[in-house]
Amino acid sequence: MDVVVGAGIIGLSIAWRLAREGRPVTVVDPAPASGASHAAAGMLAPVSEVTYTEEPLLRLGLASLSRWPAFAAELAADAALPPHDPASAPSPLPNGATGAGDGGEATSGAGTTGGIDSAGGFFGGGISAAARAGLDLRADGMLDVAFGADDLAALGELAAFMEKLGLPVERLTGRECRRLEPMLAPSVRGGLLAATDAWVDPRRVTAALLAALERRGVPLVPARVSELLRDGDRVTGVRLAPPASPGEIPAERVVLAAGSWSGELANVPVRPVKGQIMRLRSAQPLLGRCVRGLVHGTPVYLVPRGDGELVVGGTQEELGFDTRVTAGGLYELLRDARELVPGVTELEVADVVAGLRPGTPDNLPIIGPSGTPGLTLATGHFRGGVLLTPVTAAIVQGEDADLATLCSPARFRDIS
Amino acid sequence: MDVVVGAGIIGLSIAWRLAREGRPVTVVDPAPASGASHAAAGMLAPVSEVTYTEEPLLRLGLASLSRWPAFAAELAADAALPPHDPASAPSPLPNGATGAGDGGEATSGAGTTGGIDSAGGFFGGGISAAARAGLDLRADGMLDVAFGADDLAALGELAAFMEKLGLPVERLTGRECRRLEPMLAPSVRGGLLAATDAWVDPRRVTAALLAALERRGVPLVPARVSELLRDGDRVTGVRLAPPASPGEIPAERVVLAAGSWSGELANVPVRPVKGQIMRLRSAQPLLGRCVRGLVHGTPVYLVPRGDGELVVGGTQEELGFDTRVTAGGLYELLRDARELVPGVTELEVADVVAGLRPGTPDNLPIIGPSGTPGLTLATGHFRGGVLLTPVTAAIVQGEDADLATLCSPARFRDIS
Repeated sequence: MDVVVGAGIIGLSIAWRLAREGRPVTVVDPAPASGASHAAAGMLAPVSEVTYTEEPLLRLGLASLSRWPAFAAELAADAALPPHDPASAPSPLPNGATGAGDGGEATSGAGTTGGIDSAGGFFGGGISAAARAGLDLRADGMLDVAFGADDLAALGELAAFMEKLGLPVERLTGRECRRLEPMLAPSVRGGLLAATDAWVDPRRVTAALLAALERRGVPLVPARVSELLRDGDRVTGVRLAPPASPGEIPAERVVLAAGSWSGELANVPVRPVKGQIMRLRSAQPLLGRCVRGLVHGTPVYLVPRGDGELVVGGTQEELGFDTRVTAGGLYELLRDARELVPGVTELEVADVVAGLRPGTPDNLPIIGPSGTPGLTLATGHFRGGVLLTPVTAAIVQGEDADLATLCSPARFRDIS
Repeated sequence: MDVVVGAGIIGLSIAWRLAREGRPVTVVDPAPASGASHAAAGMLAPVSEVTYTEEPLLRLGLASLSRWPAFAAELAADAALPPHDPASAPSPLPNGATGAGDGGEATSGAGTTGGIDSAGGFFGGGISAAARAGLDLRADGMLDVAFGADDLAALGELAAFMEKLGLPVERLTGRECRRLEPMLAPSVRGGLLAATDAWVDPRRVTAALLAALERRGVPLVPARVSELLRDGDRVTGVRLAPPASPGEIPAERVVLAAGSWSGELANVPVRPVKGQIMRLRSAQPLLGRCVRGLVHGTPVYLVPRGDGELVVGGTQEELGFDTRVTAGGLYELLRDARELVPGVTELEVADVVAGLRPGTPDNLPIIGPSGTPGLTLATGHFRGGVLLTPVTAAIVQGEDADLATLCSPARFRDIS
């Protein structure tokens, strides 16, 4: 039997894929779906989040994004999500180019026909409307905007880099940005549209995963793993912290997917990087797509949900295992969101949470068999846990050997 | 029997005082202690809150402040609050002038010996340490600070006005302000110390009132009053909204203390003025006294609680019956609190609430018998509900005829 340690979006997805294959699996987590997955905005944005030295992460992200439609459709079916309700769907967007495929009719089985080079059509044939509605998966692109002259210059350089990589981005004037998103501040000088980027509601995804696991009879043990059981050089199971009973679960394989806490159970180079995020409630959606900006040197993003909520994120703080929502964190989010979209001031604050992203020395996740027999790792996803969920589950299942090499634990010494 | 409509700090206090006199009384409220009292900071600050045209409100506030020590001591005894724990008391203050009487030993029975002209000694003999600890009543003064040159000039004019009225205020340089409160921003240019002003935790006061009422057997009916029962020109009781049973409560006298909602039951000129407030959690107290500043033209205040919490308030918004916590409201509070005390950025956000202050056309409360037999009013306390609680209960009991005239419903036409 496999034991998956951690019921965040990564651990739950791995358990679900294993269960679909018919493998016996158990998940252990004292508080399922309440960590980084709960605090994540859910951007599936490998294009607009590309950074200069991290082409391997881009490859991984693009591969995972291409898996998301089928992943979502299968999950929706397995979790028996309710059918699509057109009344709850986001309103049609002003820009037809990014609204393609949003017609509401169910299509499926064409998950591999899309591609990042066909702007806007990516998800068109790849996911049923039911899955899209149930997980709030949307493929309306990401708009990066610039304020000052310096910001615009930086965005121009980023666009040149993206074009060199062959990524589908479109440079826009300030006026064009506001035509796409009329609620943007008048001071926006220009932008960059990554029309193939997408997003999803991570809380709906983990809820669907929990439902799918329950339907497949996968046990979810609500306990904390205090240590890995070892027999010589081999990992043979997990020990549970009291008062859990039985106190041990033997396993052929332990999959360690405990995010920032992975380093407490094995010698893995992950560290917690705190993020604070806010959900605002709106009767009318303020935005049709994800919007991000660099404001006074701080990146802020706004992610619209289908139910009218607007997610504002996200700080990055290196403070250890600190999950306090702070006055300073809230202040920065509110200040920068106001700069981007002044209309947010009128919205109700529905929720504020902090989570811990598991960072690694090279910003790439650590996925695959460790040097220790019986121990597989699936951690260190830093800012990309939601995006990288499908490819992580695939790598753990032994697929995608090429990508697996990128994420291999073997690149670090002394993992055990 | 009297029926008090409204279980905020005003209604509960009136009911408690009536019960102490042996009068049969019933309180009706669908959600006791959850409105403006729950959102109030609890400043007892008639001196530092004086404004140019409102000397009557000053008289009322000073009279009520002088009643607070005895009120608190009697309430603490009646609610059987736990005895004083020196370990939980605030630390001694650097300025001896405002820390007098903070020794922790119980004193009582000298409630009338203090006075606003003896700086710092006001509460010294007036309240037992037990009552002080249980209600978090503190008399360490209010410090008003100025940032820019304009703010300093405005504060100087206010000081001159206060001095003309004979109020005990002390002008301070920026350095003197920081000596009193070392966490103040370096940009503070000067200040004004109102050493006799005080504050209390309104949530502890309403909790104590509820306990005292329960001990005295006063019924608290958890229902909404849908209308006043009338017989000709006379009010004879209240009708309760379904599903309450019985649907009516007859009364010799109805005391309407429903805050902003009073206008829904009688023809009273009150309007809701929204305030948003935030509680921050701190291991160490950041401040030794209340601090207030005018920042970019917006007043903000910080009120330290005995348990280390810091209350930041409060917006003033005329938006009708809107109690949403908004992004804009939070933003303003955080922005201005950071300007005053930069260290707040590190504090955890414990709680954010919005409440509705009952405003009146002349900013004075409306207290006393209405023109309608059987109906007494105790509403319209705007920003002063907590401060004015003792004097309001006294006026309803027929005391303080002189002050009663100031607050009389008779000053408005057509109240009924």
